[in-house]
Amino acid sequence: MKTAATTKKELMINAQLDMKKVIEDLNLSDREKLALTCRILFDKGHDSGIAGQITCRAEQPNTFLTQRFGLGFDEVTADNLMEVDHDLKPLNGEGMANPANRFHTWIYKEHPEVNCIVHTHPTHIAALSMLEVPLIISQMDTCGLYNDCSFVEHWPGVPVGNEEGILISKALGSNRAVFLAHHGQLVTGKTIEEACNLAILIERAAKLQLLAMAAGEIKALPADLAQEAHYWVSTDKRNKVNFAYYVRQALKKHNDCI
Amino acid sequence: MKTAATTKKELMINAQLDMKKVIEDLNLSDREKLALTCRILFDKGHDSGIAGQITCRAEQPNTFLTQRFGLGFDEVTADNLMEVDHDLKPLNGEGMANPANRFHTWIYKEHPEVNCIVHTHPTHIAALSMLEVPLIISQMDTCGLYNDCSFVEHWPGVPVGNEEGILISKALGSNRAVFLAHHGQLVTGKTIEEACNLAILIERAAKLQLLAMAAGEIKALPADLAQEAHYWVSTDKRNKVNFAYYVRQALKKHNDCI
Amino acid sequence: MKTAATTKKELMINAQLDMKKVIEDLNLSDREKLALTCRILFDKGHDSGIAGQITCRAEQPNTFLTQRFGLGFDEVTADNLMEVDHDLKPLNGEGMANPANRFHTWIYKEHPEVNCIVHTHPTHIAALSMLEVPLIISQMDTCGLYNDCSFVEHWPGVPVGNEEGILISKALGSNRAVFLAHHGQLVTGKTIEEACNLAILIERAAKLQLLAMAAGEIKALPADLAQEAHYWVSTDKRNKVNFAYYVRQALKKHNDCI
Amino acid sequence: MKTAATTKKELMINAQLDMKKVIEDLNLSDREKLALTCRILFDKGHDSGIAGQITCRAEQPNTFLTQRFGLGFDEVTADNLMEVDHDLKPLNGEGMANPANRFHTWIYKEHPEVNCIVHTHPTHIAALSMLEVPLIISQMDTCGLYNDCSFVEHWPGVPVGNEEGILISKALGSNRAVFLAHHGQLVTGKTIEEACNLAILIERAAKLQLLAMAAGEIKALPADLAQEAHYWVSTDKRNKVNFAYYVRQALKKHNDCI
Repeated sequence: MKTAATTKKELMINAQLDMKKVIEDLNLSDREKLALTCRILFDKGHDSGIAGQITCRAEQPNTFLTQRFGLGFDEVTADNLMEVDHDLKPLNGEGMANPANRFHTWIYKEHPEVNCIVHTHPTHIAALSMLEVPLIISQMDTCGLYNDCSFVEHWPGVPVGNEEGILISKALGSNRAVFLAHHGQLVTGKTIEEACNLAILIERAAKLQLLAMAAGEIKALPADLAQEAHYWVSTDKRNKVNFAYYVRQALKKHNDCI
Repeated sequence: MKTAATTKKELMINAQLDMKKVIEDLNLSDREKLALTCRILFDKGHDSGIAGQITCRAEQPNTFLTQRFGLGFDEVTADNLMEVDHDLKPLNGEGMANPANRFHTWIYKEHPEVNCIVHTHPTHIAALSMLEVPLIISQMDTCGLYNDCSFVEHWPGVPVGNEEGILISKALGSNRAVFLAHHGQLVTGKTIEEACNLAILIERAAKLQLLAMAAGEIKALPADLAQEAHYWVSTDKRNKVNFAYYVRQALKKHNDCI
Repeated sequence: MKTAATTKKELMINAQLDMKKVIEDLNLSDREKLALTCRILFDKGHDSGIAGQITCRAEQPNTFLTQRFGLGFDEVTADNLMEVDHDLKPLNGEGMANPANRFHTWIYKEHPEVNCIVHTHPTHIAALSMLEVPLIISQMDTCGLYNDCSFVEHWPGVPVGNEEGILISKALGSNRAVFLAHHGQLVTGKTIEEACNLAILIERAAKLQLLAMAAGEIKALPADLAQEAHYWVSTDKRNKVNFAYYVRQALKKHNDCI
Repeated sequence: MKTAATTKKELMINAQLDMKKVIEDLNLSDREKLALTCRILFDKGHDSGIAGQITCRAEQPNTFLTQRFGLGFDEVTADNLMEVDHDLKPLNGEGMANPANRFHTWIYKEHPEVNCIVHTHPTHIAALSMLEVPLIISQMDTCGLYNDCSFVEHWPGVPVGNEEGILISKALGSNRAVFLAHHGQLVTGKTIEEACNLAILIERAAKLQLLAMAAGEIKALPADLAQEAHYWVSTDKRNKVNFAYYVRQALKKHNDCI
């Protein structure tokens, strides 16, 4: 095999280049991406009544796109998303946002690199959150969250106040995710695609953790290899390739979405 | 942020007011709401053959709407519900109610504020009931049942007699729910919407509890914050907003229901 | 309440009488019932590739209806069932039965009251069978199997020989079900309806047991009340009422079955 | 019963002969079989985004059929499969293979009897892999993997390099499957049918193991009987009979596949 001499590092770089060259990105607006993310996450178990919240930055400074309060993730469309200001007031005066969205605006204020936030209470995250233990990453696919998920061990109550926003925003730090004891999860992204992927990942990680903890003792990953895997699965291009696949799946079921 | 000074309490009150103003209620009859609740609960895992029972007060004193014995929750329609008296006798002489409904009439007799009862044996409630441990509320979404669910630790056998009715009615006390060891669950509501929401919540709480107990040790919620969350999620308006969402979901699948 | 004086026993008898009078039975042939049972059990998690087997006595002595080897439960129709003799030879010379059916004929030979046998390896029965512990009945709905399920603790290997038939038939004794370690389950019935109900029940019981054992310690039922519940849920009429409901459900999905 | 004297061994041989004679095989191309295997595995829980990989040998030496990188298993068709060389280069220059496919070519090089490889990270395999314990076969249906599944206890990181290919290929040895700690599973087959069956089996085995470990202590199978069961379920004909059933199931849902 003539490539036998090729090192792993070179092979990884070549693969990243191939991916950029060969796979075309989707051409979608932010409204479309946000609405599709709601449908994708609904199908991946993030359905928890009307409790979930999703936002992304809108064109004007300190304004955000979000779903209308009262709608489930399976009802969000590109058209029925609403624009709100930093105080959750609708720009056009109609409808209302989820009042528990308040901590999103704190995160956007203090984390300028964040452009999208997904906050949900899916089943396995919710169950794991009752144990007051941090998320444990011990399987290759979930390494996108390795050393990248903060833990808020003390539940501050219903996150409607500004206090909770300050607390959660601070806990996020330089990570992309926060696991909230007795509550749920929050992931952020530079792009909607990144946040969508991390949201899928964090519920899957919680499910794997619960299954594994019920059966035995979870073993740690070697830190260097886990960090390498984090890099491998976290590129912007891979987020887009994954997202494009999830979008194609979602559109088969949810043709009213965009 | 000009609202930074706003207290959490003020924000909570404002949100409740917004909800009342902005979100419109559905306009449905009791028969329609009851039939829809059956379909909603069927989809949420409350299917246990023909074992579940649902009732609400009908117009005449001591009369009730309930499903026909022999029908599953996925077969109930606004039209095929039947009216029975306190002794489960059909008012028009046709069909029969589930004979295990008897304890419902005891609850209505002794709890005048109760207008709707949902009694089911969904999978996770049934499994948890085998352990003779009470329901533990340790996650924000399920706080609607915090300090609001009685526990009948001793199974009195098949609830066909009046003895079981007296026992269960007494156990309910001033709570809205009862968890019945070796048996199932019972929730009540001032409205059908409230009972529907609590029924969804109690099975979800049991599922979270089983998942968490299998994986580790559940940690307690701070009582004051849990009580605040109970208040936050238990308003009449929130029950109606949630119910309206579940109805829209149910009607996509169950268009023969109303 | 004028019925307050009515005893539980009287109420139970009245309910049984009402059931007989009010609920009409389905009018189906044995071929139709057997095929429908396959579809019902497929939908209830008894899908395990082509491993399951179902039989009932046919008109000639020592002949049986069974599904064709190679078909899954979701492919069985009233028309494609085959008749075989006690040695599994097809009466009309076409097709073949599952060779692992052999132990059925031993049961029919030694248990003249048995007219239908369902043997499957559904997920929770299969998982529980790896622990070499008996089935534990600790929830009201599953009391149809209380003191009515034998346990074969030692796995005799693939049940293709006559030795396994003799072993399993003897283990059944006067019970209606057998739980087979490292293997699966077998239920019998005087009627197809009875066997269908018990098959649904045994997989549900195994699921509840696994969920409960993972989370804590299962508590025993009071024997007299469990026996009363066994009687209450095991009448011929109740089996027929349940079966009729499952048939209606199955026909919504499986309109090619009969 | 005149066959009472027939030994178990004779009955097993007769059954194998009957199976060959009575059940007809499907007539499908390798492309069709490979695409159908993707759809079958998708429906059986092997969906893990775009992480899974499937290959089979193509007509030219050192060339392979595989799915296009970026497509999920539910999107693979006989037509969109691609041919690659041992270095994963597409023969016609279009598209790209999953770069993590590299270890497949190492296995093909060193295991000339292997004609098909399925590598996936389904949920229960992934969860079990976090415990660094080997796969335990303790239920009859999964005996096709008894003494036939290697265990790679140390995770070598993302399998993009040649090092991981050499490691995994060596670990396979004379077995048909490998369980990879912190990663997933790999099964091989002389035929696509065999690999498809083993892939279904290994995820089912992991699910059963997790359920059983959570509830108690798994008991070992008697080695001789487990080996007999391995033989009984692993014949070429049985693989084809099972595969034909799974194909019929898949085609009901996935009529765009072939």
